[in-house]
Amino acid sequence: MAFEPTDYLPYDFANRRHIGPSPEEMAEMLKVLGADSLDALIDETVPKAIRQKEPLDFGKAKSERELLHHMRRVAGKNKVLVSLIGQGYHGTVTPPAIQRNIFENPAWYTAYTPYQPEISQGRLEALLNFQTMISDLTGLEIANASLLDEATACAEAMTTAQRVAKSKAKAFFVDRDCHPQNIALVQTRAAPLGIEVIVGNPDKMEADKVFGALFQYPGTYGHVRDFTDHIAELHKHGAIGIVSADPLALTLLKEPGAMDADIAVGSTQRFGVPLGYGGPHAAYMACRDDYKRAMPGRIVGVSIDSHGNRAYRLSLQTREQHIRREKATSNVCTAQALLAVMASMYAVFHGPKGLKAIAQRIHRKTVRLAKGLEAAGFAVDPKAFFDTITVDVGPLQSAVMKSAVDEGINLRRVGETRVGISLDECTRPENIESVWRAFGITDHDDDFTPEYRVPDNMHRTSDYLTHPVFHMNRAETEMMRYMRRLADRDLALDRAMIPLGSCTMKLNSAAEMMPVSWREFSRIHPFVPKDQAEGYHELIDDLSAKLCDITGYDAISMQPNSGAQGEYAGLLSIAAYHRANGDNDRNVCLIPNNAHGTNPASAQMVGWKVVPVKCDDRGDIDLEDFRAKADKYSETLAGCMITYPSTHGVFEETVIEVCRITHEHGGQVYIDGANMNAMVGLSRPGDLGGDVSHLNLHKTFCIPHGGGGPGMGPIGVKEHLIPHLPGHPHTGGTEGPVSAAPFGSPSLLPISWAYILMMGGEGLTQATRVAILNANYIAKRLEGAYDVLYKGQNGRVAHECILDTRPFAEGAHVTVDDIAKRLIDCGFHAPTMSWPVAGTLMVEPTESETKAELDRFCDAMLAIRDEIRDIEDGKIDGENNPLKNAPHTMEDLVRDWDRPYSREQGCFPAGAFRVDKYWPSVNRVDNVYGDRNLVCTCPPMEEYAEAAE
Amino acid sequence: MAFEPTDYLPYDFANRRHIGPSPEEMAEMLKVLGADSLDALIDETVPKAIRQKEPLDFGKAKSERELLHHMRRVAGKNKVLVSLIGQGYHGTVTPPAIQRNIFENPAWYTAYTPYQPEISQGRLEALLNFQTMISDLTGLEIANASLLDEATACAEAMTTAQRVAKSKAKAFFVDRDCHPQNIALVQTRAAPLGIEVIVGNPDKMEADKVFGALFQYPGTYGHVRDFTDHIAELHKHGAIGIVSADPLALTLLKEPGAMDADIAVGSTQRFGVPLGYGGPHAAYMACRDDYKRAMPGRIVGVSIDSHGNRAYRLSLQTREQHIRREKATSNVCTAQALLAVMASMYAVFHGPKGLKAIAQRIHRKTVRLAKGLEAAGFAVDPKAFFDTITVDVGPLQSAVMKSAVDEGINLRRVGETRVGISLDECTRPENIESVWRAFGITDHDDDFTPEYRVPDNMHRTSDYLTHPVFHMNRAETEMMRYMRRLADRDLALDRAMIPLGSCTMKLNSAAEMMPVSWREFSRIHPFVPKDQAEGYHELIDDLSAKLCDITGYDAISMQPNSGAQGEYAGLLSIAAYHRANGDNDRNVCLIPNNAHGTNPASAQMVGWKVVPVKCDDRGDIDLEDFRAKADKYSETLAGCMITYPSTHGVFEETVIEVCRITHEHGGQVYIDGANMNAMVGLSRPGDLGGDVSHLNLHKTFCIPHGGGGPGMGPIGVKEHLIPHLPGHPHTGGTEGPVSAAPFGSPSLLPISWAYILMMGGEGLTQATRVAILNANYIAKRLEGAYDVLYKGQNGRVAHECILDTRPFAEGAHVTVDDIAKRLIDCGFHAPTMSWPVAGTLMVEPTESETKAELDRFCDAMLAIRDEIRDIEDGKIDGENNPLKNAPHTMEDLVRDWDRPYSREQGCFPAGAFRVDKYWPSVNRVDNVYGDRNLVCTCPPMEEYAEAAE
Repeated sequence: MAFEPTDYLPYDFANRRHIGPSPEEMAEMLKVLGADSLDALIDETVPKAIRQKEPLDFGKAKSERELLHHMRRVAGKNKVLVSLIGQGYHGTVTPPAIQRNIFENPAWYTAYTPYQPEISQGRLEALLNFQTMISDLTGLEIANASLLDEATACAEAMTTAQRVAKSKAKAFFVDRDCHPQNIALVQTRAAPLGIEVIVGNPDKMEADKVFGALFQYPGTYGHVRDFTDHIAELHKHGAIGIVSADPLALTLLKEPGAMDADIAVGSTQRFGVPLGYGGPHAAYMACRDDYKRAMPGRIVGVSIDSHGNRAYRLSLQTREQHIRREKATSNVCTAQALLAVMASMYAVFHGPKGLKAIAQRIHRKTVRLAKGLEAAGFAVDPKAFFDTITVDVGPLQSAVMKSAVDEGINLRRVGETRVGISLDECTRPENIESVWRAFGITDHDDDFTPEYRVPDNMHRTSDYLTHPVFHMNRAETEMMRYMRRLADRDLALDRAMIPLGSCTMKLNSAAEMMPVSWREFSRIHPFVPKDQAEGYHELIDDLSAKLCDITGYDAISMQPNSGAQGEYAGLLSIAAYHRANGDNDRNVCLIPNNAHGTNPASAQMVGWKVVPVKCDDRGDIDLEDFRAKADKYSETLAGCMITYPSTHGVFEETVIEVCRITHEHGGQVYIDGANMNAMVGLSRPGDLGGDVSHLNLHKTFCIPHGGGGPGMGPIGVKEHLIPHLPGHPHTGGTEGPVSAAPFGSPSLLPISWAYILMMGGEGLTQATRVAILNANYIAKRLEGAYDVLYKGQNGRVAHECILDTRPFAEGAHVTVDDIAKRLIDCGFHAPTMSWPVAGTLMVEPTESETKAELDRFCDAMLAIRDEIRDIEDGKIDGENNPLKNAPHTMEDLVRDWDRPYSREQGCFPAGAFRVDKYWPSVNRVDNVYGDRNLVCTCPPMEEYAEAAE
Repeated sequence: MAFEPTDYLPYDFANRRHIGPSPEEMAEMLKVLGADSLDALIDETVPKAIRQKEPLDFGKAKSERELLHHMRRVAGKNKVLVSLIGQGYHGTVTPPAIQRNIFENPAWYTAYTPYQPEISQGRLEALLNFQTMISDLTGLEIANASLLDEATACAEAMTTAQRVAKSKAKAFFVDRDCHPQNIALVQTRAAPLGIEVIVGNPDKMEADKVFGALFQYPGTYGHVRDFTDHIAELHKHGAIGIVSADPLALTLLKEPGAMDADIAVGSTQRFGVPLGYGGPHAAYMACRDDYKRAMPGRIVGVSIDSHGNRAYRLSLQTREQHIRREKATSNVCTAQALLAVMASMYAVFHGPKGLKAIAQRIHRKTVRLAKGLEAAGFAVDPKAFFDTITVDVGPLQSAVMKSAVDEGINLRRVGETRVGISLDECTRPENIESVWRAFGITDHDDDFTPEYRVPDNMHRTSDYLTHPVFHMNRAETEMMRYMRRLADRDLALDRAMIPLGSCTMKLNSAAEMMPVSWREFSRIHPFVPKDQAEGYHELIDDLSAKLCDITGYDAISMQPNSGAQGEYAGLLSIAAYHRANGDNDRNVCLIPNNAHGTNPASAQMVGWKVVPVKCDDRGDIDLEDFRAKADKYSETLAGCMITYPSTHGVFEETVIEVCRITHEHGGQVYIDGANMNAMVGLSRPGDLGGDVSHLNLHKTFCIPHGGGGPGMGPIGVKEHLIPHLPGHPHTGGTEGPVSAAPFGSPSLLPISWAYILMMGGEGLTQATRVAILNANYIAKRLEGAYDVLYKGQNGRVAHECILDTRPFAEGAHVTVDDIAKRLIDCGFHAPTMSWPVAGTLMVEPTESETKAELDRFCDAMLAIRDEIRDIEDGKIDGENNPLKNAPHTMEDLVRDWDRPYSREQGCFPAGAFRVDKYWPSVNRVDNVYGDRNLVCTCPPMEEYAEAAE
């Protein structure tokens, strides 16, 4: 008998990792769609005119094992030294239980932003813990659920201050002792808004000339100053006092609230979040209660559910950018939820005493280091400090720096003659010895008696972290179970499809995630010499090259660490380009109504005027209106911002014309890359006429959403914009930075690189095709039950589709909310609600979902439609029905059941798993109550007890 | 104000990781117990006479970070080469999704053996998949749920054969082409049982002289032989044919069933389980249906629950050693559940086509390698093979081996002149080039045309893995959700206390677990040269030294890879010692009734006669009876086996006397170390008079139970027994091996080492004290409700206590089973049931549980007692009550509720979490039905559909 070789490739060699439907399933789906083949479907969907000429070709795709082997080799090119550079970034110990049970657990990292509170109570509790921690440590009344990075938080604080200050001054003061990246980012942000930034010595600040001031605490060179008087002076003139504070230092030092500060910002990186060459980390912002509606970012609040039980939710959501558009307080939309959760768990693990003990140990080590240096005759500055000192070594600066590197230690270069040293939780006695040796001290008196050098009048006197959650039993067993309980309350990708239109909730595969935990990626300080980050640079360079190939652009900046940050960076580069051309008056931005929601807010941030452009009945850009507006503003046209395919889920053929018109009038074209998952391998924004686009690596390129961050929003630009890409104090460049770190959140980049290397050009293209197939399959299966709002020429949708639920509001009084909550009973996260069109659901299945999961979703949606019909037909009650009572909880099953439908029908609608059913932990959450009774820190335990009764 | 230094140590420095109750909680508990201090409690509990003289001192305990730093350094001393050694161990790719979601997921690794099926349906399904996979691949009707290792499986197959063979011959034939460790272990096992082992050429086997024969397939040197005729010949003489087969090869080659084999064994290591310097890996055994009751190990079967729904459970449990004691089929008690789950998931991931493709790729690579060698004039043997060849290089053997090492490749030394090469899934083209270079081939014709060299008549013609579970959609999204769904059905330590007496279900901390995944530990072949495993040896040496300190012994053998294996190894060393002294007749073993259940089975395996010794009313060894029996068998006394503290949960003061008497009569003392968690730091078995003890590293020393394995059971011995410790063909020694690999399952050892290093001597001792405190606290809180069967002199228990539930059987007809199932409703895994005393529950909380969790358990037990009282008092029905109907499922809530108690009472008894309630996925499982209708492979899908209706 002959040996029959099989041509079957093991899953690892066939991109079956990412692509949900099997070949057999795809054939069935195509039959349902009446398409002859996948290519035929794509031809009907994606217009020929916009298709790319050459297929993507990245050589042979790597198997998981080849990928990890390759990644290991590249990681090995990063050198892991002990970095005592400080400047806002510190060594820290991630408790292994947090690393394994949160950072490496798909139940946490694949979750979405908690917009659907009923399925998000676990992470909402963790984020509320974060807010409570920040509020306590800073001594301010209200905190948000994290921001992108400390420098961004400083800039956001500045704009918040401008909104709330009574002072009408146009200038903003910045303490010269702020971290350089904080100063630089504030300057970047201020310029287009016409704010003058005055950097100087706080003691010389003229409070009457500014609407606010930012102080660093402790200062970047280690000084611990009391800003109470400065802030009092600011207040006298109706100006706002902002303190950027190290939260660990606040366990020992007088808190910003005690200085009467209005706003505090900072980074929680050193609360257990790895350095990662700059990010991701969670920054924070806290403020007085008065200013809460002006504060950017998400805020978790406490409300009640329909049975009056305590329930968490996002509060004050109407402030968000996609709702307020150009009137938004900020364009910030991604937070750093996963990292905020880690930081909050770090505080839960250690408790107030533990955090204080860590801070004291660091301080004592710093005193010991300083004494050794002083004993050898070095001039140590300042005399009082927390963890950071500088030493003037005159002309020996480079020699000391180099000598330290030889010892395996990175120090900070300060000015021409000084060396900065910041100790941290990880500093070991031998590291201190190494530093001494770098200063030439080999033999010295190290008679170490504990001593404290915090200024006498700066000790913290108030309590913090008094809530019981920070006084849990700290045995790992208890901690592990707490993290598991919270995770189990939430519905994430590890249990069900999350068909969120515009959010591209696709697989974040284990192989892609693993390298992120490797020390060669996680333990690199953002400001190490470049030769210690060669692995990172190889990765960044190759990933950039491949993203250029994918997008048709000429260069990529990895700096923006969210999609909105990317938009902003892209617009800044356009503005700089106009300025460089002497076109100083170009400040009008055309934005069609089918563009992404953050676009207007971003345009506003660069000081542009937003001119909306209409859409036609098909949901496409109204070309006549676009042409008319372009004509009208021809002289002042900065550019246009379009989303492709549009947020209406359609590939518009007019895109090339839109770009042409814009260019004709001297404008530049920003193409929002949020929907790139519909384009990769088929069409390139750079070919369509785009000058700049951002890419959501956390959508199309597999970085997980982490429950609402991290994200990465690098931008691609055409050659003429390259000189205008973001610069950074550490790496240079003519423009200012948009993120705290030169490469944004680099420790996430292995994920996207791994995805591209394992898919290869053909695999990536196939993913796009299947994403389109999956969306069309859903649209087809729901035909007759739900109208798809917008379709292309041939009746196809792109990678997502908008289902119109407005008709049900009239007949059955069923709202889009009712359907979303009923989907929870079916075991699904709802699609995107009421965006971009109110009263609709936007469904994006992505290529990762199998036919079985798509069918489960369609079955659920069809059964819901039947329920609506029963209401319409009067068969079931209009108020007391499964839709209005959704979601149902286990509590409903235990309670007396006085409903006109059965427990079975209520709790196990079509789609719901039987044995493995997901149960939300609360009934429908009352949003109005929550906003009216705003509580944004952990409620006292007595209230929990009451609620339980 | 003065700076107030806190003396609070962060959790990571205070052993708060492992020890559940906080200092405040301990104080409250001691008050309840009426003890003045923890030391006072210990003094009342642990008799002075047996206390160790010096406290344990291992220097300063390491923090998590120090530990990982240290571990990283030690790991770095292992050199990761590409090992093409074969001999039963192969490179393999663990799919990252399996690594992250199973191997590194506490929901899987902290689970216990699925004796309580209602809370174990997830892992039971995974193990049933394993059995189905093995049954299909081997072509035999029934398979067990894994065995310790392939060599052990060979030996177990031999004893099984002896039990079932019609032939009364006393000899057993072993193919000389078996792996050397398989031959050696069969010989070790055979000797004490009086079985003659004939190692030879199968073609010369005299079938009439043996009761069975073991063949290796493919042979250890690569030959692929058809044993059909040999087995037919064996059958003619009523003897049993056993094939030890590589399961991956079986995807291409004629299966053992097709050769009419009776039993097949082998290792599933290359199905995605890391090498780990020898283990842990899951071995398998499959046999004809006729022999199922003689087969050792656990078997998962399909039954129904009380509502007639399909439910999985362990079948034929009455065969197990703790029930049958000296009549057991084997002393094997730990399986390799976690590794079997991984291997089965590997098959689910790849499916039959994928596995075949992997096998074919390996084969084609091997053909290519062979052709290159042949082209250069080397003699390659055999001509037909699967993945292994040998090359005769005459006197150049060492030169080629060394040259290969220089190329980063380990080859196998075969005889004096040959070199063996086994390729695997990981072999890359450059590895083949390296091998050629090692043979001096630098320039050769590598015109690679695919070619197959499997013997023509040996192709597999039957189907395998036809069940739908092996044809799931293989997208990672689907796989990840499948693993999560299964995990969610089970209750493990990550959700609740598992108070199993004698099982010591304590925390397996994340920091301890992490190094196990590191490639420096996971990718080492067990037979690499020692200089490539220096890290492992540093670890093993230091861990051994510390275990000697802890136990009072003089040396440790790490070879036994389960507790029972350790008992066996210990008894073998005693037997060898007697033989060396010319005491050939010493074969009587005294075993008191309060000793561990595996003890008699182990004694039987070394050919000893078990003489039971009575216990007195207090549950202690009856010293008179012991003395009398020792007197009676003085001439033939081999020794005694005692458990300390006894399985009755008491520190007996007589232990020293028992040891003295044994020694007086020339016997040796085996002290079972299963209860070592009650002794560490307080008392040392070596000081009490023990000559040998095994340690369950998977109990006291934090290796997780993995849902029923892995385990590690090293033995400690006094100096005189050192020469008689297990040897191994690879490492030498005078005695035979007891496990396949020289150091058992070494990749688990970092866990125990990490535990000891992070606890330090004082931390370990404190853990013991708190384990005793926790047990006494439970006993006290349940006082009046449940009688504690045995207590020490001062009314205290050791680290566990036996609750008597027999009184309830009379009045209320409530069985221990009812209580166990009711505890599931309360969110607990039941304590050990009916062992060591029928009708009782043995509770061991361990030191890891917090007071809150202990109280939750006590509240549950007290509420159950109230329910029993209500039955006794006639307040509730004797049959239709919460105890008899337990466990309640979500289905019960949905169904019509016709019970005389409320849904609330049924589903939310005291102890049950409200929001975070654990729901079992089935109602009470019918054991009798399952054993009567034995189904041990996955049922066809139609049946699933029926069951669902």
